Amino acid sequence: MSATDREESHRARMQRKKAVVDAAIARADRDQGLLLVLTGNGKGKSSSAFGMVARALGHGLRVGVAQFIKGRSDTGEEAFFRAQPGVTWHVLGEGFTWETQNLARDRETARRAWAVVAEMLGDPSLGLIVLDELTYALKNGWLDLPLVLADLAARPALQHVVITGRGAPDELGAAADTVSELRDVKHAFRAGVRAQKGVDL
Amino acid sequence: MSATDREESHRARMQRKKAVVDAAIARADRDQGLLLVLTGNGKGKSSSAFGMVARALGHGLRVGVAQFIKGRSDTGEEAFFRAQPGVTWHVLGEGFTWETQNLARDRETARRAWAVVAEMLGDPSLGLIVLDELTYALKNGWLDLPLVLADLAARPALQHVVITGRGAPDELGAAADTVSELRDVKHAFRAGVRAQKGVDL
Repeated sequence: MSATDREESHRARMQRKKAVVDAAIARADRDQGLLLVLTGNGKGKSSSAFGMVARALGHGLRVGVAQFIKGRSDTGEEAFFRAQPGVTWHVLGEGFTWETQNLARDRETARRAWAVVAEMLGDPSLGLIVLDELTYALKNGWLDLPLVLADLAARPALQHVVITGRGAPDELGAAADTVSELRDVKHAFRAGVRAQKGVDL
Repeated sequence: MSATDREESHRARMQRKKAVVDAAIARADRDQGLLLVLTGNGKGKSSSAFGMVARALGHGLRVGVAQFIKGRSDTGEEAFFRAQPGVTWHVLGEGFTWETQNLARDRETARRAWAVVAEMLGDPSLGLIVLDELTYALKNGWLDLPLVLADLAARPALQHVVITGRGAPDELGAAADTVSELRDVKHAFRAGVRAQKGVDL
């Protein structure tokens, strides 16, 4: 095939692709507050939620964030976003579950945390809400899943919610509009590199 | 099992888990500039990279971003991060490939784009560099993969690089420290919801 034929063949292929993509875009014409779930063992779930916080702020939306499990408060994302106008930031956990080793206290912490979230879900001025690592509270049974799903379903129609964490329950995936599962193909931690500022925390 | 036994059993399980986690943390004691690859068809790859930008800024790092394919310049992430001190932002593409329909021009665009990236990779004052949607330029052959890998390998020892996009070449995954593959379990777009500000752009 000559260079000119290759160019022509490439152009024809790309034109067909563009037609398919344009038709799909024309079919997708609704606006809606989305429920997104980012789960799986791979690196990047919470980061992805925080990237959406930046996107939302860039469009002038107000954002609420609740970090469920991490009791730590020296993360880069918290330092950065707390200093931004339009962001409400809650750290609601008491540390990772294997740190507390007390089931009753974990349940009580999760219950109080959800009360804070429920208030945000009732606030139509918030365009995006991030529930970081909520899945741990669900899969460990610290929170009542039907209550959580009901509060999510009753939120304002255009409010987006992003939920992160490993092992999202099937019912949460069923209620979601978009679900991505992050597969852990490779992780630097297993090669002996500790968590790095700016990437992992 | 009584409630007290359950508490005790939970505590013992969590203690064992904590011991395993603590040992893994003790083994991972190196600091290193990481090469991260976020690939797969699921939603959240670019968002994840932008979340790491926020983390890095929160720790006082300087950040460089190059968006490879998207010629558009009305995204939330761009509006937001361009206004932040410590961020250098380049939009290097001419639109999605099926928009340009000209292979020679795409190659020339990619070549000029990589020259900009190579300069960032040589700048030790940048703690994190995001190469958003670089994979499209690689899998379409617009950029020379060995050249890209050589420039990545020669970067400063503590500089982190995040590369996003579908269909990352195997050689790129092999060179990376951390690879996550985002599986598209469900996407609102297929249910007729168009790209939403604050989530998708």
